[in-house]
Amino acid sequence: MKLTLVSEASTLISAIFIRCEPDNEEKLVDMERGETRGRLQYWHGEIPLNADKPVTHYCFKVMQNSRQWWLHGNGISPRVPGKEAHFKYNRQDQPPAWVKEQVFYQIFPDRFANGDPSISVLDNEYSLNGDDRPTIAKEWGAPVSSHGENGPNEFFGGDLKGIQGKFDYLQNLGITALYLNPIFSAPSNHKYDTTDYLRIDPHLGTNEQFADMVSDLHARGMKITLDAVFNHTSTDHPWFDKHGRNPDEPGAYGNPDSKYRNHYQFDGNSNDYIGWNGISSLPKLNFSNPEVRDYIYSGEDAVIKHWLRPPYNIDGWRFDVIHMLGEGAGAKNNPHYVRQFREAAKSANNDCYILGEHFFEASNWLQGDQEDGAMNYYGFAHPLRAFFAQKDIAYHNCQIDAEELVNWLNESRSKMPWQNQLAQLNQLDSHDTMRFLTMLENDDETMQLALLMLFAYVGAPCIYYGTEVGMEGGQDPDNRRCFPWDRAEAQHPTFDYVQKLIELRKQAKCLQEGSLQWLMAEHKQLAFARMLDDEAYVCLINNSENAKPVEVPLWQLGMEQAILKDLLTEDEWQVKDGILSMTLAGKEGLLLTKA
Amino acid sequence: MKLTLVSEASTLISAIFIRCEPDNEEKLVDMERGETRGRLQYWHGEIPLNADKPVTHYCFKVMQNSRQWWLHGNGISPRVPGKEAHFKYNRQDQPPAWVKEQVFYQIFPDRFANGDPSISVLDNEYSLNGDDRPTIAKEWGAPVSSHGENGPNEFFGGDLKGIQGKFDYLQNLGITALYLNPIFSAPSNHKYDTTDYLRIDPHLGTNEQFADMVSDLHARGMKITLDAVFNHTSTDHPWFDKHGRNPDEPGAYGNPDSKYRNHYQFDGNSNDYIGWNGISSLPKLNFSNPEVRDYIYSGEDAVIKHWLRPPYNIDGWRFDVIHMLGEGAGAKNNPHYVRQFREAAKSANNDCYILGEHFFEASNWLQGDQEDGAMNYYGFAHPLRAFFAQKDIAYHNCQIDAEELVNWLNESRSKMPWQNQLAQLNQLDSHDTMRFLTMLENDDETMQLALLMLFAYVGAPCIYYGTEVGMEGGQDPDNRRCFPWDRAEAQHPTFDYVQKLIELRKQAKCLQEGSLQWLMAEHKQLAFARMLDDEAYVCLINNSENAKPVEVPLWQLGMEQAILKDLLTEDEWQVKDGILSMTLAGKEGLLLTKA
Repeated sequence: MKLTLVSEASTLISAIFIRCEPDNEEKLVDMERGETRGRLQYWHGEIPLNADKPVTHYCFKVMQNSRQWWLHGNGISPRVPGKEAHFKYNRQDQPPAWVKEQVFYQIFPDRFANGDPSISVLDNEYSLNGDDRPTIAKEWGAPVSSHGENGPNEFFGGDLKGIQGKFDYLQNLGITALYLNPIFSAPSNHKYDTTDYLRIDPHLGTNEQFADMVSDLHARGMKITLDAVFNHTSTDHPWFDKHGRNPDEPGAYGNPDSKYRNHYQFDGNSNDYIGWNGISSLPKLNFSNPEVRDYIYSGEDAVIKHWLRPPYNIDGWRFDVIHMLGEGAGAKNNPHYVRQFREAAKSANNDCYILGEHFFEASNWLQGDQEDGAMNYYGFAHPLRAFFAQKDIAYHNCQIDAEELVNWLNESRSKMPWQNQLAQLNQLDSHDTMRFLTMLENDDETMQLALLMLFAYVGAPCIYYGTEVGMEGGQDPDNRRCFPWDRAEAQHPTFDYVQKLIELRKQAKCLQEGSLQWLMAEHKQLAFARMLDDEAYVCLINNSENAKPVEVPLWQLGMEQAILKDLLTEDEWQVKDGILSMTLAGKEGLLLTKA
Repeated sequence: MKLTLVSEASTLISAIFIRCEPDNEEKLVDMERGETRGRLQYWHGEIPLNADKPVTHYCFKVMQNSRQWWLHGNGISPRVPGKEAHFKYNRQDQPPAWVKEQVFYQIFPDRFANGDPSISVLDNEYSLNGDDRPTIAKEWGAPVSSHGENGPNEFFGGDLKGIQGKFDYLQNLGITALYLNPIFSAPSNHKYDTTDYLRIDPHLGTNEQFADMVSDLHARGMKITLDAVFNHTSTDHPWFDKHGRNPDEPGAYGNPDSKYRNHYQFDGNSNDYIGWNGISSLPKLNFSNPEVRDYIYSGEDAVIKHWLRPPYNIDGWRFDVIHMLGEGAGAKNNPHYVRQFREAAKSANNDCYILGEHFFEASNWLQGDQEDGAMNYYGFAHPLRAFFAQKDIAYHNCQIDAEELVNWLNESRSKMPWQNQLAQLNQLDSHDTMRFLTMLENDDETMQLALLMLFAYVGAPCIYYGTEVGMEGGQDPDNRRCFPWDRAEAQHPTFDYVQKLIELRKQAKCLQEGSLQWLMAEHKQLAFARMLDDEAYVCLINNSENAKPVEVPLWQLGMEQAILKDLLTEDEWQVKDGILSMTLAGKEGLLLTKA
């Protein structure tokens, strides 16, 4: 693999080595001093890719007279960095090239748009969990119930036809890919309690309709990723049938002799079984059972393959709580099953996106052999939440400055190969978190900074439905309100901003796949560049209410004298002698490139 | 698992959580506010051990009003730390309890003592590598040849009887365990080129003599670890027989039909084969061949088991270049083989020490399931070399201050379970590195600081033979000079210092297994404590030539008013209001405990 490094030409450097480990032992490869351009010195070198494992780790050792510096994914150190921070390249498994080019849009189907009122769930149409919770039909836009009340059993009537009817709207916004929360048959509104993996929930549409919808999407050059909930099923799945709805073929619950008994994990002949996260309404599937494996991923017609093939042709799977599945109460042999999921999916569509849901660090799943990308809570949503909203994942107070933000973002990225960094699904919020705007207490200015970061940073941006019209919402289920179509019609001011950011992202390959260089990070200010070939975009963010003078060292990008244009406002700025010297207004965010 | 944490009682803390991941998902366990002692507040909590995997990761989340702090193996952060820094506990595989209690002594057998001149290698007795390098017999104490010259073929006559004859000497020094460089039949003086894994080299002694020596050792309550060189053999091993010494049963070299052909890794029918590190005189064994596996570890009489059983009863194996072995040119499937080595060894002696040689970070091998400990270059020798000698592993200039030293030591330790931290083999130098004293350009004062650190820090100290009499030596082979017994007789001043440190270490369980707390680290000064039950040892080191006033916050250990005694000088120091306020002399090192 050929590698190039750039140093400041005036800094005395006696040698630069690339450090790699072809046989688990350090090998230092001397780089050649190459061309200089202005005050930049280029260095070139080549290392062998590891033959014994798919991932090659490497970093750079920079020699000065009396000391040394190491450049790695986490920054610069005076000594060899820990292995987790070395740069990584996976020669075997890489994400699909299309992922990084997308702008995703996440839809919670019951709440996006009602296209066919005739199939909407009716009041009292059926009950969840036996007779516990009868369905409630609510009017579009009515407040959702608070948590624990009627969370899963109230319905607003959103459906596939509704989504398809808004394709023009989404395309006008600039969206190129959808991620839908679950749409397979399931009693709840969130549908994480599957009763039939092979059938679209009849209140959302039909299999035929779904096939038609995907083909419409594809005709528009758009992609779709579905939610794969394979860790657990509904207690009403025929395999489990807790409420005895199918007396002819008894389910596992209460029937130790059921042919499906071993699909789940019962304690002997008792009615005690393992539920996801201890929740008894979501019994965990038993992946040590070959029948479960066959059905979900390994059989010729397994669910994972089924929907990737014609006539459905979905483009990817978002695997729900992927790190938690396996054998037994914990997640025994989890990596094995994730690799098998990947293999099954890629066998049906080699170009499909394998996306994992992870609320926490997911480095182990993101080395290339398991997932292509993760819902990037750990490496994007949480650092931004801490920096912009002073909250952590548990909504506890949390304070980090720009330096720690960069440290966190780098730590997360440096643990995975670059191609996987580009294929992360970056989100500010989702159906599982308070809406970001609400976390910011409706501070639109700060929201704009966070959105700018979403579109300028490494990874595919994903917007949770309605963000573009300033939707609010507290924690689940308040974060799943109905889309306020009146706001869309009234031209909500956020819409233009998001549309503009999307347009910029789509026009600039540099933002989709350019390398990242931090230029500044202190207190509440930060600046970074994305670079590709001769193109460079510079993003500046001031998260303080107060104006702040900054000096951004753009000579590091090879810029000495230049006029930069802010792509959001068209304002122009001058780079003199390699420095962009300016004052950032309070809460200002800029995205600059050469005029 | 029950856990206790201590905070400063006057610091406002609203809650402390233990964070764990029983099913790969975060679980926060609220700690109970317990007793206070002086200005310390105790907190107690209990977490479940992971059921789905042997290692449980955990760290602590400390809540204040507007912010949070995380305590983990690498220190304190304002946000959740990366997984590698979480504390780790392995419920399944733990190192033998005896390891941490030992003081090891590494011996390079040809250079320690000649006990039986009748078996010493003679001039021209045989040749290495065919006729290339005839043996050279040299007089005890004569200078060793320089590198590349007669490195491997000159002999000084050290042998097992010589070693055994010095047991009284070693016991007087305080040594409790030996690590011997290879002693099995091999043509070179270093014997990393085995020709017979089941026979003591006849120039070192006999199998019977070795059995007798171990039983003498054991009678003295001492332990022994041997060097296991299973990655490669000599080209003169009968399996390879490059020089056609055994025409009756052709070896693999030059004989594609040899029954041993597949013991190595030849390129088809050619004479090209894979050598360790590209060195053709050390052909790599092929572990994908069941016969090799059977012979080395899996068979009933496999080598690994053979020497752990009567009549030899060795106490551990030090596995040479363990990370590099496997299948093919790299180290394919290496973790599998290391686990198999462990299992084989523990099946013969469940209490044996599995020690790996690693020049670089070895975290992956040190989670419990592979090795008990490593020759701790990455987590001890190299940080100390950088701090005290301003050199890195490649003898390049390297500068780190005390803060970075602590960062490096912590990073390395935090990646492995605590029990494995205690079972690391800490060394300043070895047969593979320049002697530490020589790296320090014979600066005895700084050497004493490094030795103090060796005996006060976490991990079993190991002394490379002769360190106690100030032996010098450059890089291999100059680091393998003959032991200067005249210096031992003349009561070398370093001897007393090392003997004293060993005595202190052996008397203090606290130094063997006490927890570690850093008290100070800036510029060239550092202080840390080891604590066990109510005992505490405090180590202070000033690596500057200049005196330096320091204020050490001993209240963190629960000390408010106390008299401390330096165990090396008997000097007394006073702790007032929780602070030890004093001036460290230039290059001073202290080891304090309550008088």
